[in-house]
Amino acid sequence: MIIVKIGGGKGINLKGIVQDLAAIKDRFIIVHGANAIRDAIAAKMGYPTQTVTSVSGYTSVLSDENAIDAIMMGYAGVQNKRLVELCQRHGINAVGLSGIDGKLVQGARNKGIRVRQNEKTIMMRDFSGKPKSINQELITLLLDHGYIPVICIPIIDENNFAINSENDDIVNVLQETFKAETVLQLIEAPGFMEDIKDPASLVKQISRSELEMREAQVEGRMKRKMLALRKLMENGASQVIISDGRVEHPIQDALGGKGTLIQ
Amino acid sequence: MIIVKIGGGKGINLKGIVQDLAAIKDRFIIVHGANAIRDAIAAKMGYPTQTVTSVSGYTSVLSDENAIDAIMMGYAGVQNKRLVELCQRHGINAVGLSGIDGKLVQGARNKGIRVRQNEKTIMMRDFSGKPKSINQELITLLLDHGYIPVICIPIIDENNFAINSENDDIVNVLQETFKAETVLQLIEAPGFMEDIKDPASLVKQISRSELEMREAQVEGRMKRKMLALRKLMENGASQVIISDGRVEHPIQDALGGKGTLIQ
Repeated sequence: MIIVKIGGGKGINLKGIVQDLAAIKDRFIIVHGANAIRDAIAAKMGYPTQTVTSVSGYTSVLSDENAIDAIMMGYAGVQNKRLVELCQRHGINAVGLSGIDGKLVQGARNKGIRVRQNEKTIMMRDFSGKPKSINQELITLLLDHGYIPVICIPIIDENNFAINSENDDIVNVLQETFKAETVLQLIEAPGFMEDIKDPASLVKQISRSELEMREAQVEGRMKRKMLALRKLMENGASQVIISDGRVEHPIQDALGGKGTLIQ
Repeated sequence: MIIVKIGGGKGINLKGIVQDLAAIKDRFIIVHGANAIRDAIAAKMGYPTQTVTSVSGYTSVLSDENAIDAIMMGYAGVQNKRLVELCQRHGINAVGLSGIDGKLVQGARNKGIRVRQNEKTIMMRDFSGKPKSINQELITLLLDHGYIPVICIPIIDENNFAINSENDDIVNVLQETFKAETVLQLIEAPGFMEDIKDPASLVKQISRSELEMREAQVEGRMKRKMLALRKLMENGASQVIISDGRVEHPIQDALGGKGTLIQ
């Protein structure tokens, strides 16, 4: 099995990705983002995407009720359905599902974010959390009958509320469940870069030991990224490929050796 | 089986409907609208819902690409997912699907609408059409495994494009396929009214022969409504109940004898 994670930037070539996927023989599952379109919708709706910075210096999206509406419109609405439509046009019998449909992705809601406000530290609780388990039965049922799941946020919490979550974490829980051989991550860059501004700094290959070393060296978002990659390998992936989602043939290129190969 | 059609007006008490459904023993399928929220989203996005009037005097929504985006955001996005979330909160394991997911509702795209423009009659073609068949296998698969399908537009056309369609027509094709005993239609009125402005004009019962008589007498939208009701009966419904979706217990009331009973 292949898990295909598609980034939510507006430069991603969805049509190219779907054309490539139509030629693939392996089973696959798609997990997609939609942050660009979500932000555009939220702004037009009059409740632009807000971020908060915790006292420990970590910045994240504030997922209030409006933000969840915007996720539903942007992710589960237009991005998911346009992607499903593209799949259908290319002969892939896709079924678009959010994590709340059939409790596909079950999570635990975050207890709150510690933030400074008016010189006090307060706990802000929003609708966000971490995915913990997958409805394996539903995904297998669909795959066994020829349907390709196209998955996005929101996911569902322990009290059956829709919550926001990180796609990296969702992919990790999917990998824990399905033990895919290959995890493809299609992003708006040529792959993993030493220096994001320098295309020549593409790292062609990262070994598992190097992953641990890098994880120890870096901080913040990059540390979490390295941790997520390490977990994918620990959960049985033979390879993780981070590759360019903007090119003409994103999947062909990724499987053909472009991008960053972690194995 | 019961097919539950929920209107898309903003006065509809979704929570009340879901609470009532949680107590029901029969299998059921939900088909929902979202026109109020779709119109609000479309307006905010800067492409308000447009209507066109054909040379034959029939007015319909113009479903251009923006309008389909708004349907995806409003119907398949926020309305479908908030309804699925409500279901999950009340113990109903709902799976929200549009007609394009797994080709659930397949239709034929309209050839075009004849409209007068600058003193000429032109054909305007948009993304709208009529549902023709249902992916019975997918719905049955879900029902057999304990999932409740929550269905909305868009549907999919013969070239695998997402198109707009009337919920009355979708319910009719579902009824052709599943032969439900009961079809519930929850609307923003006490039931079928002789005079929409007069609550006392509620028609408590319509017989099949009366349906045909009324169909012959009326015009336009009401004629299509009568035709749709007649087809439901012809396709094996023992009863169709049109009832108030705004009250505290919309389903209890409908099954308890309020609203209009067609049998």
